[in-house]
Amino acid sequence: MEQRISLVTLGVADLPRAVAFYEGVLGWKAESSPPGVVFFDLSGVVFALWPHDELAKDMGLTADRVPAYRGYSLAHNVRSEAEVDAIFARLKNHGATILKKPQKAFWGGYSGYFSDPDGHTWEIAHNPFWTIKEDGRVSMKKDR
Amino acid sequence: MEQRISLVTLGVADLPRAVAFYEGVLGWKAESSPPGVVFFDLSGVVFALWPHDELAKDMGLTADRVPAYRGYSLAHNVRSEAEVDAIFARLKNHGATILKKPQKAFWGGYSGYFSDPDGHTWEIAHNPFWTIKEDGRVSMKKDR
Repeated sequence: MEQRISLVTLGVADLPRAVAFYEGVLGWKAESSPPGVVFFDLSGVVFALWPHDELAKDMGLTADRVPAYRGYSLAHNVRSEAEVDAIFARLKNHGATILKKPQKAFWGGYSGYFSDPDGHTWEIAHNPFWTIKEDGRVSMKKDR
Repeated sequence: MEQRISLVTLGVADLPRAVAFYEGVLGWKAESSPPGVVFFDLSGVVFALWPHDELAKDMGLTADRVPAYRGYSLAHNVRSEAEVDAIFARLKNHGATILKKPQKAFWGGYSGYFSDPDGHTWEIAHNPFWTIKEDGRVSMKKDR
């Protein structure tokens, strides 16, 4: 099994509401997608929004109640602390749920957490020890 | 906010057990990582394993019980149905939890689901309408 992730799929309660959040609040642009699912092309990783019942059924599971903490996080790294603050300012203006305001992190960076309308958690972080390449992909090495 | 994901972090109950699964069963190779967390470099996306309590605390949440269905899925796409079967044969040999055996999917592909020791769900899929590039990254267009 090669060392990669092809898709990250989030189960959502209301697909148009979720799309409105990712497009309207985060400013992303969805691809033309088949009915009932919405795909975003993230430079070689596909991010998908799919109703909870469909995703759970596809997994062979049932969509039970999901608590606030689901044991995972998505993260979006940026090039400066100011960029972290700018994203949280935008999120606040749009009434998004802020879990943790941007702050100095114990690991030497600067980050905050928010959740989308379905409670999926995202971290926005500046990590001074890693590099963000031209195309936005992250490298775990410091580019000097 | 640029359209990308930098990290996918999974909360885990037992870090060595989780690492043994990703390295021993999936055959991945971890990077040299700081104490208490384990990173894998997935061609520009970082995959992280981090104890539940630490991740929950970092998010500003508490690590409640997590049910089987957590409203998300990771996926790993491969180049043929035979590759899907080969991965599931390996998973079965290692006693991994198979949620859904590989089968024809309603969307025209072939896929199955398994969960890791902490219940994080993965889909292994062959999608004949998408392309997997040389470096393993996925493209939502068919390469003809």
